[in-house]
Amino acid sequence: MSTPLSPTARSTVRRNAVRARTDRADLHAVLDAGLVGHLGLALPTGPLVLPTGYGRDGETLYLHGSTGAATLRAAAAGLPVCFTVTHVDGVVYSRSAFHHSMNHRSAVVQGTARLVTDPDERWHGLAVLTDHLAPGSWDHSRRPDRKELIATAVLALDLTEASVKVRTGPPGEDERDLAHPAADWAGVLPLHTVWGRPEPCPQLPPGTPVPQRVSSRA
Amino acid sequence: MSTPLSPTARSTVRRNAVRARTDRADLHAVLDAGLVGHLGLALPTGPLVLPTGYGRDGETLYLHGSTGAATLRAAAAGLPVCFTVTHVDGVVYSRSAFHHSMNHRSAVVQGTARLVTDPDERWHGLAVLTDHLAPGSWDHSRRPDRKELIATAVLALDLTEASVKVRTGPPGEDERDLAHPAADWAGVLPLHTVWGRPEPCPQLPPGTPVPQRVSSRA
Repeated sequence: MSTPLSPTARSTVRRNAVRARTDRADLHAVLDAGLVGHLGLALPTGPLVLPTGYGRDGETLYLHGSTGAATLRAAAAGLPVCFTVTHVDGVVYSRSAFHHSMNHRSAVVQGTARLVTDPDERWHGLAVLTDHLAPGSWDHSRRPDRKELIATAVLALDLTEASVKVRTGPPGEDERDLAHPAADWAGVLPLHTVWGRPEPCPQLPPGTPVPQRVSSRA
Repeated sequence: MSTPLSPTARSTVRRNAVRARTDRADLHAVLDAGLVGHLGLALPTGPLVLPTGYGRDGETLYLHGSTGAATLRAAAAGLPVCFTVTHVDGVVYSRSAFHHSMNHRSAVVQGTARLVTDPDERWHGLAVLTDHLAPGSWDHSRRPDRKELIATAVLALDLTEASVKVRTGPPGEDERDLAHPAADWAGVLPLHTVWGRPEPCPQLPPGTPVPQRVSSRA
């Protein structure tokens, strides 16, 4: 039960396959490969964790949401946040129940988000967010108007306090389990995230070609 | 920027495509389809959100981790938690930057976790957790020994306070944007999670067959 996807520091020490990494390139790669992170705040009503879109520019993570959302308002008011991005890369089948695990990459960012108020940086943050979700879309869609801008809060979160964990490879077994009679197999069942075929909006004129920025992702 | 994957209640109200659902079957389906959730706690040092394995039995979610982990100890001591599971099903390309979105399913569970101390329920919780991650593995691996059991905390979280959000379908557009000159396309680029080919442990005897419980997932 020492899955590295349990809140445990132990497996990091015990198993070489799970490593806390400090390399910025690793951190950036994990963040850039994700679409959604989980934003956690300690609200007066209790902790709340919500799936949240994001985008990265250098050492800054941009988040956004409705100015009407309680979580966004709390984060914008200077409440500390934690933002976590996780990729599951496979299920690790071990000869023991205890050493079953997941291959994964995760990034945990802690800090206090800053409400972006400068109009230029707000505009930039929205471009970063849009192009992270849908590369090229900022230049191929109607830009936000005044009303939409007023309704949208943009937050910036510094990557100073961030850590990355990566687990790869086969199960880490106890020597005694290698020939255990109950264990008929061990190994990794990989998990992949793949794009499907683009589904055009029904209101699009028939025959509208799928742009390369969309089709090239799939 | 009204992506439902921003902390926003607004899009739920405004766009019919995003719905908060109360149906237990929907909740169970979202939880059962995931491998990892994000456990959030308000620690004295600030909020912390960690990827965490889980398993469900009826209206109970089982979590586990090392008894040495600060987060697990805090949750076991009765600190409120939030546990969130999210599936991203596609990127929604809109004719406006503002209405770009993600198709997704997410479940948010709030409550106070209970440290499971009854030996029978602990054993049951570990079986549920193992078989959620790797169906059939509990019966095909060495069961936890005394030392492993001592090192493992099992928590139970009730699903009473849980909500589900699901967004499906094409972009929700403003009428005025349908023929916007900057917008050359709109639609959904679906995202799928698929299993890869099983990778046998290098220490397995050559020719060991992949059991059906593993191969049938892929």
